[in-house]
Parts: sequence; structure tokens; C-alpha cells
Amino acid sequence: MTLTNHRILLRSRPTGIPYPDDFVSDTEATRRPAKDEVLLETLYLSIDPAMRSWMSENPGYQRAVPLGDVMRGGGIGRVLESRSSDYQPGELVQARLGWQTHPTLPARYLQKLDMAKGDALAWIGPLGLSGVTAYFGMRDIGELTPGDRVLVSGAAGGVGQIAAQIARFEACHVTGIAGGTEKCAYLANELRLDAVIDYKAESDLPAAIGRACPDGIDVYFDNVGGPTLDAALLHLRPQARVVLCGRISQVAADPPYGIRNLGQVLTRRARMQGFQVFSYHDRYEEARTWLAARHQQGQLHQRLHILDGLHHAPEALGMLFRGENNGKLVVRVG
Amino acid sequence: MTLTNHRILLRSRPTGIPYPDDFVSDTEATRRPAKDEVLLETLYLSIDPAMRSWMSENPGYQRAVPLGDVMRGGGIGRVLESRSSDYQPGELVQARLGWQTHPTLPARYLQKLDMAKGDALAWIGPLGLSGVTAYFGMRDIGELTPGDRVLVSGAAGGVGQIAAQIARFEACHVTGIAGGTEKCAYLANELRLDAVIDYKAESDLPAAIGRACPDGIDVYFDNVGGPTLDAALLHLRPQARVVLCGRISQVAADPPYGIRNLGQVLTRRARMQGFQVFSYHDRYEEARTWLAARHQQGQLHQRLHILDGLHHAPEALGMLFRGENNGKLVVRVG
Repeated sequence: MTLTNHRILLRSRPTGIPYPDDFVSDTEATRRPAKDEVLLETLYLSIDPAMRSWMSENPGYQRAVPLGDVMRGGGIGRVLESRSSDYQPGELVQARLGWQTHPTLPARYLQKLDMAKGDALAWIGPLGLSGVTAYFGMRDIGELTPGDRVLVSGAAGGVGQIAAQIARFEACHVTGIAGGTEKCAYLANELRLDAVIDYKAESDLPAAIGRACPDGIDVYFDNVGGPTLDAALLHLRPQARVVLCGRISQVAADPPYGIRNLGQVLTRRARMQGFQVFSYHDRYEEARTWLAARHQQGQLHQRLHILDGLHHAPEALGMLFRGENNGKLVVRVG
Repeated sequence: MTLTNHRILLRSRPTGIPYPDDFVSDTEATRRPAKDEVLLETLYLSIDPAMRSWMSENPGYQRAVPLGDVMRGGGIGRVLESRSSDYQPGELVQARLGWQTHPTLPARYLQKLDMAKGDALAWIGPLGLSGVTAYFGMRDIGELTPGDRVLVSGAAGGVGQIAAQIARFEACHVTGIAGGTEKCAYLANELRLDAVIDYKAESDLPAAIGRACPDGIDVYFDNVGGPTLDAALLHLRPQARVVLCGRISQVAADPPYGIRNLGQVLTRRARMQGFQVFSYHDRYEEARTWLAARHQQGQLHQRLHILDGLHHAPEALGMLFRGENNGKLVVRVG
């Protein structure tokens, strides 16, 4: 049986938000695995803000995706054929599968899913890299302490949902910022955050943050950057920690928004720190054990926004930057 | 003998750079010390950027100087009359003497100078609060490591001179930014920094920093904020530390300059941290022992810019914000 590998290739480097025209699709015959390689069927692909940076000439970290190459992306796959003694057909793995239906990859690039921790949807969701990012960002960079006043932007997104819940587990007062009534209702009613701000409905975001966080902010977990970050800085408590995790609002901003309230970082003796989850590679297992325990007890939730079919991947990326997703964005391929 | 206490009072709250008109002078008879008080003769007053914030309605930290009160300021004084068993006439002390020639203060507000560490000029200079600020900022906040590439702005100022030299002691590659050829010549020839940037002579500051720091920056010690900070962010190395010590360029900026390059803090996994020396009060002795040892060996220098007479204090503060001082600004009173 010869399978066809449907692929989506990067055609052009976007300025601002990526559009479907930046990609082109093709097909090829699947490549049979060589020694120590595995042929996979892609089941799910995760759509994440960091992917935008890989499309640029100079991502700042990691390597740019070369034009004409399969778009890079992580996901969950099933082993179809293996020439590695470590993998058997039918096993589920996670890897940087790329935007393709049937990748053939070196076995050393794969990680077997521990099904005792959760199923495939758990692994693309709360146990995936966005959950792990939230774990290290909130705990290690944010130095979360029980009782802290915590503000999370992009709180309905892939990382934000988990970050907000981690703070809830530590008995913190948690305020989430999101755009639109549906996302905010989810945060208030299902994730049970203490306060919610719909930034699209607020003409004065600094004042809205002041009302939601009258005692100020000990930890600000920032997924968006720009004016939301600037507004949050006005409410820092002494020795506050600002976790710079993402800046999705600035993808299409040229020039970038100018942050005017950095003086607050000085007067409040606060700390702003950027991080990337890859720095914590050696400790992923710790995070997944912690997240899986709470997920299996039904305490940790993550709403997924699932699009069906590989051909939706290019538009999914644009949705992410326009805030059109309701939950962590996933493309179901298999 | 009745002495006259010449005083300078805060008359109005400045917008932007303080002017002599913001102050008014008067005289009063000195007050004889009550029990546990000391009458002092002011010898030197230190003129520091932080004083501007105390003149505002909401300093952000510490208490505002009330209108009509003696302007707050630290310095060195000599005991004239004591009703405290801890102090004898003739002894030298440091304290927040205020802008006055003959303050009477509670003994518990004074700290006796350890003359074994240095004389009065050493105590107003490298052993004073600006030296102590540089010590904790560079070592604790900057986590200075031998061999680091270090950039210091305001490098010819009170804190900057010491910060740059601390980095030199740790075998770091040190670049100083200052305004004007005279300050830059001092940094290059007397403090022997590895590279010097005269920001007033550069039309493209980011490019100038790139030339001076071709391998990037591990520690940026920022005394100025604004466009200099923004330019430095473009050259951060992975896991760089940005020490937010001061933002003298922003005193008269309304609105404040908008920082556009914060994305570099995220992609470089860098840290920006604000601090104030008062947080380290319990460890001042550690810093002074370290600084005094190097000062006495002739390794640690600090150029002072001394103005003679209390009546120069108001104009001195303006000079500081216009960058007209050559070295740490001091008013000699006694």
C-alpha cells in the first residue's frame, strides 16, 4: 500500500498576521522509513503563537522555516511503520511532525505518550507544551506564592487558561483578561476566576484593571504585550514579577507599541523576565506529572478549539492572531 | 553662642527639571538639642537624581517632602553639641541632614563615619549611597559574572562611575555611555573602560552600541532610561540582566518615552529588574567594606563635582538633570 503524504509548505514570509496565501499545499508519496526511522500518521497539530516567529527571516530563537519547506509544527501522531526497536505500530507519540499527514521521522525526534497520564486530547491540550509553558512561567519565573494577586492576559488562550488555573490552585486572587463576552463567560463560569476583564468592552483598560485588582498585582503573566502590558505595569505591587511569555498583540504592530510605564518597574522594585519553555526541557516530566494529576482529578480544564482537516491549518494561524479562537487551537488531521 | 541655621525650603512642586525658583531660603536660630538629640554642622550634601522624586506629590516610594519644609537630602556633618551618650563633639556622621547648615536631629538618625574606611570626601563619594547602590545593583541585581559584557549608561555619574569600575574588577568587558567629550575622556583615560560612547555625538545610538559591544550585552546597568534603554535592549545576549537603577532622561519627559524593544527581553530570555538601595539596608556594611578596601588601595576612583556653598544646592539639582555635572555632584556647606 502506498500512502500519500499531504503537506503544507511555507511559500512566503508574512508581514504581520499570516494569511493562507503564505502557504501552498502539495502531495508526495510517503517515504518508507530507513533504519531508526518511523512512518507516522498525524492525528492532531497544535497551533501556537510561537509559530509566527519561525516564519520570519530572523526568529530571534530557533531556526527560520526555509521557504518551500513543510511548515514546522508540533502534534500527536500514530506509528504506522517502524524501523526502530523503540516504537511499535499503533503507538502514539508527540513530535514536531510538521504540517503533513504522513511524516517519516528519525525515532530520536519522537516522544512516546504516557497514556497513564492522559489520552491524545489531553496530550495536545493541558499536558502539551502550552500547559508546560504555563507551569514553568507561573511557578519558576513568576515565583507564584499562595495568596498572590495574579493577573493573566490572553487568559482564554492555550497557555493562559492553564496559567490562570495554576494560580487558582495556589489560593491566589486571579484576574483574567480576554476579548469578548464568550471567552470572559468561560473564564468566570467554568474556570471560576475571581475577576474577568473583557478588554474589547473597556475604553480605559488601566482603570478596569484597577477595579478588578484593587490591591494591585504581585504576578502579571503576560501573553499579549503592548497596551495591556503597559496598563498592567501601573498596578504592580512592590517586588512584583512580570512574566513575559508572549506578545501576540504585537505581531502585526509596526512599529511596535511603545511601553511608557517602565518607571513603575523601578519604583516598585519589580522584575520583568522573558522565558521560553525549551529552556526547561530537562524538567518537562515534572510539569506533566503535576498537570496530569490535576487533569485526571477533574480539577484542571482546557477548552480546545478544534478545526477538522489539515487544510485548515493556515487559516487557523490567522484566527489565533485575530483572537477568533475560543480555546486552545488544534487541527485534527487523522 | 547662638548659631544661625540657614535653610533651603521646598516652595513648589516642579514639572520636569527642578529650577531654583522651586526653592526659597530662610534662616532661623539653631535649636539646642533635647535629650538624645545632636546639633550638627553640615559639611557636605550629596545631590542625587532620587531627590527629584521626593519633590513630587506621589514619589512612588518614600514620602514626598511637604511644601514649606526643608528640602530632604543626605550628607556628612560634624557634631557640635550632643545630648546623646553615643556622640561626642567633633565626630563626623552621615545622615539625612536636609538642605540646612545646622540641623538638630535625633541621634538615632545618625550613623558615625568609620574613619578607618575613609575620610569625609570618601564617605560622600565612593562609600556613600551612590557607591553602595552601584555595588548591590551590579552584583545582586545584575548577577555580574567574570567575563560578562557590560554596558553602563550615565557612566560618568555618581552611581555609574562606581558601577563601571566594579565590572572592571570582575574582568568584564565594560562599555560606558556618557554625554560629551570631557566625560568620555575621563571614562576612557582615567577609569580605563574598554569602550566609551558619547551619546551626544552619535546619530544612531543602536549602531554605536553594536560597534562598542559586537558580542552583545550580558549586563546593562541603566541609569537613564528612555531611548538609551531602548537601544541597549537590541543588543541583549541570551539570559541578559538589565538593572533598572535610574531614568534620569525621563524626568522632564511628558509623556514618557515609549520603549519599543521589549520583545528582545522575551526572545533573549532576559530579565529587567528595578531596585532601590534602601532594600539592602542590612547589608550596607558589606558594600562599604568592599568599596573601602579598593578605594584605599587606589583602585577605585570617583570624580566629584563640588559646588561651594549651600545656596548652590538648588541649581546643582538642575545641573544634574541637564547633565552639566562632571562627576558626582556635591555641595560643600561647612
